[in-house]
Amino acid sequence: MRFCICFSYEGTAYYGYQRQNNLKTIQSVMEEALFKINHSKKVLLHSSGRTDKGVHALCQIAHCDLDVQITPHQLKRALNTFLPDDIYVRKSILVDEEFHARYMVLNKTYQYRINMGEFDPLRRRFVYQHNYPLNVDNMKKAIQYFVGEHDFRAFVTENETKDNCVRTIDIATCKIDPSFPNEVVFTFKGKGFLRYQVRNMVGILIKVGTGKISPDKVGEILESKDRSKNGATAPACGLTLTNIQLIDEYQALLD
Amino acid sequence: MRFCICFSYEGTAYYGYQRQNNLKTIQSVMEEALFKINHSKKVLLHSSGRTDKGVHALCQIAHCDLDVQITPHQLKRALNTFLPDDIYVRKSILVDEEFHARYMVLNKTYQYRINMGEFDPLRRRFVYQHNYPLNVDNMKKAIQYFVGEHDFRAFVTENETKDNCVRTIDIATCKIDPSFPNEVVFTFKGKGFLRYQVRNMVGILIKVGTGKISPDKVGEILESKDRSKNGATAPACGLTLTNIQLIDEYQALLD
Repeated sequence: MRFCICFSYEGTAYYGYQRQNNLKTIQSVMEEALFKINHSKKVLLHSSGRTDKGVHALCQIAHCDLDVQITPHQLKRALNTFLPDDIYVRKSILVDEEFHARYMVLNKTYQYRINMGEFDPLRRRFVYQHNYPLNVDNMKKAIQYFVGEHDFRAFVTENETKDNCVRTIDIATCKIDPSFPNEVVFTFKGKGFLRYQVRNMVGILIKVGTGKISPDKVGEILESKDRSKNGATAPACGLTLTNIQLIDEYQALLD
Repeated sequence: MRFCICFSYEGTAYYGYQRQNNLKTIQSVMEEALFKINHSKKVLLHSSGRTDKGVHALCQIAHCDLDVQITPHQLKRALNTFLPDDIYVRKSILVDEEFHARYMVLNKTYQYRINMGEFDPLRRRFVYQHNYPLNVDNMKKAIQYFVGEHDFRAFVTENETKDNCVRTIDIATCKIDPSFPNEVVFTFKGKGFLRYQVRNMVGILIKVGTGKISPDKVGEILESKDRSKNGATAPACGLTLTNIQLIDEYQALLD
């Protein structure tokens, strides 16, 4: 039986999503819990995509095949019993064998948070600590350049040699969080993102916010397709995969 | 020289504020850092009041006397260098010898958070996890009974044998957090609070929220001065000391 699982995690204590030898990763901890539930038979968990070391998720989607007879609700409860308290399964549903977590994604939403005020120990795991105010109006202008279909080659990592860097961003916003007035939140929604793309886009937005470059320069860098023109990759801890929407047929089951 | 220090901390890893033998507490970790700064001479830190095990603070106030020649800004920087990342000194000021952190408080503000939605691993340290919706309108009615001067004897712990339980609460509100729509936030502002008072008031508000008692019953329990009529003490992790306002003379120096 194939199950689709929606789960959230705080990435602080993990070496990213993907399984790695001898390192604690989200995938390995999830698969260990699934192994116990599946009567000690190995289970492979296929996710919608990786998240990097230190990145959080409110809604990650994955699927797996289990041999054991179990209802979706029982699977959710059993997983949450075995999982540590920084991973939580929100929903589990039964899906047909056509389903694959990677290919049934309609869109993903990422949020990136920057604390422009003084360090706050209660928020330290969830923000990039910037310490100084950023020009939010200019960042709001700049972020609009990312909306639409673009070749994001300038926003991948230098060692990335992907043939196709064309992606479409449907929504890109920059807002102050009403509950944390020192925190600026970037939201990006799109069908898919390249590795480090969000953190690299945020890196250049920070340059806009500090006044090092003008908002219009972001459009130029995007068009240049030249990675060397971009800024630093923003740190992982500010990034959260906040939502994944599946194609309607499966999303209806998840809602 | 006497310094007044404003600092924040995440209480998760501490056995409360107050020094205890062989246990990691906020006071002991702060005093260890001050000891290093004060050329290995013991420093006593006097706070505005304790916070219990697991309780957080955005603004705790304390004072200490140092022998070493140091400016307030240097003290802030030195402390933040020695302190772990779950404690952060926001401000340090020089004060006269009349100053005492306990007696210069004009008012304190506490917030208590309850997550009425599903468990969220990113919020687990900062909320009481309730899982089910609470009747917010009824809790808003009930919380008004706490405003004003009252004998809060019904809201102290049973083994508390304080003579005087009369306290004044200036503001008591119940709101949904705009950034976390599943979280209800209680805010209490007053000159001073009894031990466990906030968590006991929240305990009874939860009873109102679940429909076990009516909002008006809170007024009756308050008037009864009978601790046995109150509910359970709400868990520590939902509580944060969010602000302390000093009397004008000193608050002007802190702002």
